[in-house]
Amino acid sequence: MAHNIAILGASGYTGAELVRLIAGHPDLRMAALSADRKAGQPMGAVFPHLRHLDLPVLQKIDALDFTDIDLVFCGLPHATSQAVIKTLPDHVKVVDLSADFRLRDTATYAKWYGKDHDAQDLQKQAVYGLTEFYRDDIAAARLVAGTGCNAATGQYALRPLITAGVIDVDDIIIDLKTGVSGAGRSLKENLLHAELSEGGHAYAVGGTHRHLGEFDQEFSLLAGRPVQVQFTPHLIPANRGILATVYVKGDAAQVHDTLHQAYGSEPFLEVLPFGEHPSTRHVRGSNFCHIGVVADRIPGRTIVIAALDNLTKGSSGQALQNANLMLGLDETLGLMAAPVFP
Amino acid sequence: MAHNIAILGASGYTGAELVRLIAGHPDLRMAALSADRKAGQPMGAVFPHLRHLDLPVLQKIDALDFTDIDLVFCGLPHATSQAVIKTLPDHVKVVDLSADFRLRDTATYAKWYGKDHDAQDLQKQAVYGLTEFYRDDIAAARLVAGTGCNAATGQYALRPLITAGVIDVDDIIIDLKTGVSGAGRSLKENLLHAELSEGGHAYAVGGTHRHLGEFDQEFSLLAGRPVQVQFTPHLIPANRGILATVYVKGDAAQVHDTLHQAYGSEPFLEVLPFGEHPSTRHVRGSNFCHIGVVADRIPGRTIVIAALDNLTKGSSGQALQNANLMLGLDETLGLMAAPVFP
Amino acid sequence: MAHNIAILGASGYTGAELVRLIAGHPDLRMAALSADRKAGQPMGAVFPHLRHLDLPVLQKIDALDFTDIDLVFCGLPHATSQAVIKTLPDHVKVVDLSADFRLRDTATYAKWYGKDHDAQDLQKQAVYGLTEFYRDDIAAARLVAGTGCNAATGQYALRPLITAGVIDVDDIIIDLKTGVSGAGRSLKENLLHAELSEGGHAYAVGGTHRHLGEFDQEFSLLAGRPVQVQFTPHLIPANRGILATVYVKGDAAQVHDTLHQAYGSEPFLEVLPFGEHPSTRHVRGSNFCHIGVVADRIPGRTIVIAALDNLTKGSSGQALQNANLMLGLDETLGLMAAPVFP
Amino acid sequence: MAHNIAILGASGYTGAELVRLIAGHPDLRMAALSADRKAGQPMGAVFPHLRHLDLPVLQKIDALDFTDIDLVFCGLPHATSQAVIKTLPDHVKVVDLSADFRLRDTATYAKWYGKDHDAQDLQKQAVYGLTEFYRDDIAAARLVAGTGCNAATGQYALRPLITAGVIDVDDIIIDLKTGVSGAGRSLKENLLHAELSEGGHAYAVGGTHRHLGEFDQEFSLLAGRPVQVQFTPHLIPANRGILATVYVKGDAAQVHDTLHQAYGSEPFLEVLPFGEHPSTRHVRGSNFCHIGVVADRIPGRTIVIAALDNLTKGSSGQALQNANLMLGLDETLGLMAAPVFP
Repeated sequence: MAHNIAILGASGYTGAELVRLIAGHPDLRMAALSADRKAGQPMGAVFPHLRHLDLPVLQKIDALDFTDIDLVFCGLPHATSQAVIKTLPDHVKVVDLSADFRLRDTATYAKWYGKDHDAQDLQKQAVYGLTEFYRDDIAAARLVAGTGCNAATGQYALRPLITAGVIDVDDIIIDLKTGVSGAGRSLKENLLHAELSEGGHAYAVGGTHRHLGEFDQEFSLLAGRPVQVQFTPHLIPANRGILATVYVKGDAAQVHDTLHQAYGSEPFLEVLPFGEHPSTRHVRGSNFCHIGVVADRIPGRTIVIAALDNLTKGSSGQALQNANLMLGLDETLGLMAAPVFP
Repeated sequence: MAHNIAILGASGYTGAELVRLIAGHPDLRMAALSADRKAGQPMGAVFPHLRHLDLPVLQKIDALDFTDIDLVFCGLPHATSQAVIKTLPDHVKVVDLSADFRLRDTATYAKWYGKDHDAQDLQKQAVYGLTEFYRDDIAAARLVAGTGCNAATGQYALRPLITAGVIDVDDIIIDLKTGVSGAGRSLKENLLHAELSEGGHAYAVGGTHRHLGEFDQEFSLLAGRPVQVQFTPHLIPANRGILATVYVKGDAAQVHDTLHQAYGSEPFLEVLPFGEHPSTRHVRGSNFCHIGVVADRIPGRTIVIAALDNLTKGSSGQALQNANLMLGLDETLGLMAAPVFP
Repeated sequence: MAHNIAILGASGYTGAELVRLIAGHPDLRMAALSADRKAGQPMGAVFPHLRHLDLPVLQKIDALDFTDIDLVFCGLPHATSQAVIKTLPDHVKVVDLSADFRLRDTATYAKWYGKDHDAQDLQKQAVYGLTEFYRDDIAAARLVAGTGCNAATGQYALRPLITAGVIDVDDIIIDLKTGVSGAGRSLKENLLHAELSEGGHAYAVGGTHRHLGEFDQEFSLLAGRPVQVQFTPHLIPANRGILATVYVKGDAAQVHDTLHQAYGSEPFLEVLPFGEHPSTRHVRGSNFCHIGVVADRIPGRTIVIAALDNLTKGSSGQALQNANLMLGLDETLGLMAAPVFP
Repeated sequence: MAHNIAILGASGYTGAELVRLIAGHPDLRMAALSADRKAGQPMGAVFPHLRHLDLPVLQKIDALDFTDIDLVFCGLPHATSQAVIKTLPDHVKVVDLSADFRLRDTATYAKWYGKDHDAQDLQKQAVYGLTEFYRDDIAAARLVAGTGCNAATGQYALRPLITAGVIDVDDIIIDLKTGVSGAGRSLKENLLHAELSEGGHAYAVGGTHRHLGEFDQEFSLLAGRPVQVQFTPHLIPANRGILATVYVKGDAAQVHDTLHQAYGSEPFLEVLPFGEHPSTRHVRGSNFCHIGVVADRIPGRTIVIAALDNLTKGSSGQALQNANLMLGLDETLGLMAAPVFP
């Protein structure tokens, strides 16, 4: 029996990606799509690649009837998201793709996002949506907070290593390269083709990127004490894909073994043979994450490289994976399509 | 019950695309993959985006046992293809992706491909694989010749118009823009990233592109007399996608109506509302073809623009669609995934 | 002795390109730069690639003193441009890069730009800035109107052919592919990297692009009677470069001879050997225009392909070439740098 | 008075870049160009962007007469380079762009390049070509070894810091992102557009890249004891540009001051204001190198980011800068053109 879902904020890239994935899902029915500024338009006008699908017309959120909706994907901007989610009826499960419910601590939220949280009760009960590490909690949750796409990539490389105590947690560097779709469909000069193509640059250098709030929260929890990493994201001229090059101090073979054992039975996490490393091209459009481990020439230093598609495993794919769990479905439904290469 | 298929030439882009599509097909089983120069390697080493799949190891064609194979996809270069296909056992159905069986006339083949055909009996019995126009013949065929990707795009724009007699067949210009994957994974200086990115250029200008053989054959057949079109392909810095801008003399509204009626019930052909036109980005990775019609400011002149993904609807997706028909399956199986954008 | 120049609208791509070119000019001195919204900022903050240059700070136009300025480059949007230029003191020569003074006829301007012209006297006396064809007029002019970048490309391919009467002027098709910088540094969703990369599409299809006003004006003048061409521009994922594929009816050898003779002594126009054709990559960043001629397989039909860099020969390079003439300097000063490839 | 120069290996990207730069040099005359496999062809056939130049036809090296040649740029592959250079007459000065003379120690050369050096006397007398640090030696040298492009980028970020002792030399990580032209015009599957565009990946991970030989040699010399850095290069889908993100332990303000003082009077090295950082787009096609310093949120950790164009400041521009010095010319001749953006 199909479950009815709604997608709020369907006119953004994560919204469109949800529609793309759910269109191939056997047990979900897209009952409502919202997009305040494009209300009244068919989805195919806003995203012509979806024009062949029979979809509900875009509506304002206020116009939606949630009576028969089982689960809502919320792809709204942060701050807006908390305001909307706290008004949703209790019977509706929620997967939020914004940053609003990722940080459990209210003061930490205020620090990174510059304002107090308006739905602090919900904030405390939300489950962090990194599926492989919060599976049971997610299955039981009403509200799941999708992780940051950069935060997910770094955590896939590092969590089992911190848990196992095989690396020095005080000397971790995450040098990350990301495609441009992570910035969304927003009108900013620095996202224009002419500004971004044919080159590369760093941004949020020096520890100012908000996803550091997630790294701090999760890594400190795993280590049982405060952990801070260095994290420098870079923008490269590609639409999709994140490559995190992670520098750790620890034995490379042990690092590889630890990751291999942690992810051996995971459907979407592929640990490459020791010494191999991934490319974002080979996960494009898919829910897979490829992870490689290489020993540096300097003994005791190891490079872990993780690659995933920011719009899929980094946000909308993860969201669907979590929704499957929350609805009691097979976690992989709608998500097994192979990457698109070249 | 699953049908066993084999893919010959699995180490090329069309081979990899077939694997990607068939991996999501409920009724086909990839029983054998060949790649002479990469024999012995797992597919995931040649195409890491497919590493999560459980696939047969690549073998030389000579090492394959066709006893239990129901259908072969042949992704070999032309000339090689005819040599291999004529040795296949009779019980094996064949979808050929090369140019070897597209031209029915042996002299025409020799003219465009510079040598005599080595399997002329097969050449005469092969069915031209433009699914929407040869559906019944394809369903009954043993050997189907996949069309050229450029040839398919131009024909989708033009065939119904020639059949209906609504345009001047003596004054047709197809100005085509194609991504680079159509040239395959071959080592040529002009396919290097540094040579191709950040610009555009024409190639095979003046009527020398081999796909003209297909245009001539098919359009003349439809018109009942010799038809020659002008055709200039251009290479643009994108991996996938063909955009054919077709200039015709005829009434725009009539042109639009004719296409709309011809394709109204087709699962993969989308005729856009009058005045709209497509982008290759909106069909990427999918089996869809979008077609638009716009009236020029000069009365009696019309622009038809067709967009498809050369690796999917232009070759491997078409091949799978034809294989579905040949095996008595639903034509759309494995092919309904939405395009990947952005 | 150096001439003092000012650049109005220096915060756009054409403004930055002017600064880049003039920085290497021996006889021009950049005395003032304006950018209303970025007034007070150094040019290197707005365009970091120019940070090594010692340039005047950006100012509002109102704050500029034109007393010692010999020539102004005006890179403002159309409509704004005419309002500003009519206030400039008489001793200042003006090269306008906007569309405001390209069309001589006031009614034609109103038709294409949707409003009446506010400086009709200036409009009538402005010289059309296609250097090679209006050289003497430009040298004597006070106000020169830079051509549209698409309009320049098409005219380089066609003007000598229309003048010589070697083609049918009633059956000309210009299928043009342009990079994205021609659209400027404006915040539009359709100019985002994620929207534009990895694909191609047409725009202003059917004869609605404003550069048609220039084609109509100039070609009709040359032919001595009304001439209308078909013109379909396409956007390709490259920052710079225009490739115009022009379909004409006429003898290819005669077409090639005509162009070769017309441009034989031009410093920036390179007619390729018969049968060869250009790529935008090979003119990038330069003031050169490459033109090729190929005979179609259909007798009497010919393809002319012209390539130039829209920001250089298509606008700022042309502007500098015209300024050189207006100031009595060698036309090529500051413009002979070779293209940047790859 | 013009100096006669020859370029050996003119059919590669560094050769073409030398021609582009020297074409704008007032005191150098390109007297001979070699390219063994393309001998007999005009340069404009091999690199159409140079077709407007009046250049000597490509010849085999054996056919060149060095009698009147003052200086040779040698853009041949390593190993070939040493074999050719040792045969050149003594009066010819040489700037080698290959890796053959970068490492002074014969055993170190053998270790990194897998064979013994065939011109060990020359190897010992060659001057390392990082202009800003070997200026006097270069001016007096007969043979200058151009640095690796990655090696140059990392050294610009680090040399003054090691010399000044303001960072921990035992904990340096260079995470580098490079465009594809650094790999040259060679026919390799992994350099195809379809393989490289739309993504990113690391290569030579773990300390296997040959430019580490240069880092080890130079940094150890500066520190007065063995220094080994971690170095991970990545390929991004751009043709030109290197961005080195360098992680050091040291005080950020002190790091910035040290670089600012070291490079304050350098014509091509721009140290950005504290807290700003560069993009490869803003040095494209130029000989400039932009360097930024940012303090990490973790006290005592600093990120230095350097950007240059691998074909210009990273190889051919550097080569010309060195040649200017060797010929007693102004070091900046032919090199002051502003970057090309967008």
